[in-house]
Amino acid sequence: MTDRIDVLDHGYVRLVESWGSDERIVESARMSTDKGFQGWEKDEKFLRFLYENKHMSPFEQAGMTVEVQAPIFVFREWMRHRTQSYNEMSGRYTVLPDLIYVPSLERIMAGAQSTANKQGSEEGIDGNKAALIQSVLESDLKSARDAYTDLLQMGLSRELARLVVPVAQYSRMRASANLRNWLAFLTLRMDKAAQWEIRQYANAVARMIVDAFPRTWQLFSGAA
Amino acid sequence: MTDRIDVLDHGYVRLVESWGSDERIVESARMSTDKGFQGWEKDEKFLRFLYENKHMSPFEQAGMTVEVQAPIFVFREWMRHRTQSYNEMSGRYTVLPDLIYVPSLERIMAGAQSTANKQGSEEGIDGNKAALIQSVLESDLKSARDAYTDLLQMGLSRELARLVVPVAQYSRMRASANLRNWLAFLTLRMDKAAQWEIRQYANAVARMIVDAFPRTWQLFSGAA
Amino acid sequence: MTDRIDVLDHGYVRLVESWGSDERIVESARMSTDKGFQGWEKDEKFLRFLYENKHMSPFEQAGMTVEVQAPIFVFREWMRHRTQSYNEMSGRYTVLPDLIYVPSLERIMAGAQSTANKQGSEEGIDGNKAALIQSVLESDLKSARDAYTDLLQMGLSRELARLVVPVAQYSRMRASANLRNWLAFLTLRMDKAAQWEIRQYANAVARMIVDAFPRTWQLFSGAA
Amino acid sequence: MTDRIDVLDHGYVRLVESWGSDERIVESARMSTDKGFQGWEKDEKFLRFLYENKHMSPFEQAGMTVEVQAPIFVFREWMRHRTQSYNEMSGRYTVLPDLIYVPSLERIMAGAQSTANKQGSEEGIDGNKAALIQSVLESDLKSARDAYTDLLQMGLSRELARLVVPVAQYSRMRASANLRNWLAFLTLRMDKAAQWEIRQYANAVARMIVDAFPRTWQLFSGAA
Repeated sequence: MTDRIDVLDHGYVRLVESWGSDERIVESARMSTDKGFQGWEKDEKFLRFLYENKHMSPFEQAGMTVEVQAPIFVFREWMRHRTQSYNEMSGRYTVLPDLIYVPSLERIMAGAQSTANKQGSEEGIDGNKAALIQSVLESDLKSARDAYTDLLQMGLSRELARLVVPVAQYSRMRASANLRNWLAFLTLRMDKAAQWEIRQYANAVARMIVDAFPRTWQLFSGAA
Repeated sequence: MTDRIDVLDHGYVRLVESWGSDERIVESARMSTDKGFQGWEKDEKFLRFLYENKHMSPFEQAGMTVEVQAPIFVFREWMRHRTQSYNEMSGRYTVLPDLIYVPSLERIMAGAQSTANKQGSEEGIDGNKAALIQSVLESDLKSARDAYTDLLQMGLSRELARLVVPVAQYSRMRASANLRNWLAFLTLRMDKAAQWEIRQYANAVARMIVDAFPRTWQLFSGAA
Repeated sequence: MTDRIDVLDHGYVRLVESWGSDERIVESARMSTDKGFQGWEKDEKFLRFLYENKHMSPFEQAGMTVEVQAPIFVFREWMRHRTQSYNEMSGRYTVLPDLIYVPSLERIMAGAQSTANKQGSEEGIDGNKAALIQSVLESDLKSARDAYTDLLQMGLSRELARLVVPVAQYSRMRASANLRNWLAFLTLRMDKAAQWEIRQYANAVARMIVDAFPRTWQLFSGAA
Repeated sequence: MTDRIDVLDHGYVRLVESWGSDERIVESARMSTDKGFQGWEKDEKFLRFLYENKHMSPFEQAGMTVEVQAPIFVFREWMRHRTQSYNEMSGRYTVLPDLIYVPSLERIMAGAQSTANKQGSEEGIDGNKAALIQSVLESDLKSARDAYTDLLQMGLSRELARLVVPVAQYSRMRASANLRNWLAFLTLRMDKAAQWEIRQYANAVARMIVDAFPRTWQLFSGAA
């Protein structure tokens, strides 16, 4: 069981709870014909039939809640998924923790701006330049943190002091969704078109789905 | 624990599963200030604060799945709740069971049409008339069942034979929702403006929420 | 312009209103790069790119409202689409109109129950048998209507008298959704696996989408 | 008609389109009793009845699309409303514009951190101190912008360079929702518990609803 998976430099995904099961999905789908679960020998094929024919509503009868620590820019992408339920740390109510994402050298080396004007990069940045960029980034993010702390100490309210907080700042949340919607999340966020950082989180979510819903996972990953 | 509650003449609500808990709700809400559950001595007040100030998103971090057997006209009202997940028996795939709702004498006596043109009734029907109406109803519904069986035997497809099936016909489903949405369901369907039949189902769902989420229930029922 | 399309023996789909446009979809998608609509010469390709890469959120920036008259069993399937907004006639508040669906001879001939136990049929029913079935059906449905009228006249409330109403009974509603969700509806309900009756309604909705969003329609129908 | 309302120092709300009308809402609600719009003399009372008895589904049969330019921290709050459709500028695809929110002196003076540990403030900050805070804020935000520009010029990809972008950075989006959901948005975001900045945006949305749905607005604002 993978209950907690570290992601990036200070982030994690932690399993809070899952409900339902592969068997429950079959049982729910069998409502239509008034039969129950028939054993996997028979129902493995039935689960495959459901998945391959996009009868996805039975996959809503199971689900999972996770706790996530991730940078704000990752949460900004994540929360565009409107079928999940969220509870997040608020910079209005609490001082945000001193946890800020600094990409690794490898990530920076892969992260040159493509001249073709796309979001990612093909060319790459060499090691020396990456080290320089990393140190500039680190110093910029340190300055932003200092600015935040100073404004708070000057007596400015938390909700205004946070204006200077960069999107590399870590936040924390609970996210809950049914399995159908987790699969939709993974389809978009494990895709190579997704930004590398959110992909790491999606991969962590995926490992929890492997544990809780192994047969559904097999279908999903085979189809992907 | 009330795992199965009989409703009407042939119906029931059966608890399949619940997830989360009153404590989990508090824990999720505490994400905003980066604290966890503090014990009920302190957090009873906090849960009340959430509920009374309509901070309802933490109540999405818990939920419940039930199996329901009810007449079609009850399902027609139920399924207007678009935040639940449903899997229902299908008259296209299976012959519908010989289970048809006949209201009790008491229900019929209360069910005279108000002259004020409202849906319910104030005047009532006397016992003799109610017995007559009940026997007419029963015979009508029996005829409809016979018609359904005959059409099937004549070789008509199930999806067309069902045309004669009355909305008093029982069907069966799984329904799954988070707690926030179950409370919204109960608010509308336990209300005296709701039809008496669906109110009996809502009452059964409520008893399962009492068991699984006793503190949330207290707040809900106190506020109702 | 096709503002009203007759469907089945007493049904229709009527366009109430559409909003947005193919151009609006492009404009909304261009938010991401901070550009507006560039003219169809350039943006035809861009719209195709959006559609083919399943960037569907811009298709939520347009939509359509229709009024539909259809049998209850069609509405039962339709309303499983939880992303539409519905307002329907209620048998609690009004006496349901004397409009009941009787399938045509052709439909009955195609509607034999497959021995393979599927929902549809391959073999068919011959013309004589179909005529017999149709007359039985008609008489059954007529009896159900008489039962409904009698119960109302005996003073039973509308909400209980309707128990005998068959799912072939016509009802009426307004349905409103954004274009993305209409396309999801059409994908499922124009499919040959959908029951023939709802397919006729989906086809009518499709003709209204052709008028209001011709370029999106082209992409959808080409992909189908 | 208020088609564009300036908000904060560089933001705005612009009406893209509305659909439906107060009359359409009545018409849709009348589906239940199979009657149409009866003229405002009669239907003003009916609209009030719907609103006061929380029959909100007819208010889904109208809606509005707006374009919004606002700081990221405002969008973070806004997008928690999961019933709206969004298309936003992306820092992966385009360089974010040089538009950053600096609160006014008045806003800063009101924005001291309450000792009572709440999000807002009761005490206030005097004029001199506010001027100091504002100049510090301005300089911090200017530094963050310079850092962003420098990282881009060093060849770092846009998706990584944006890590240093503060949540005071302006972004732009289209947001579309039905009227019921806009009212839910206003209920939460015009409330005095909402942060002052998003309240200004909610007020601007409200003015557009006044224009497009004057009778519904009257009910909403009277009830508030």
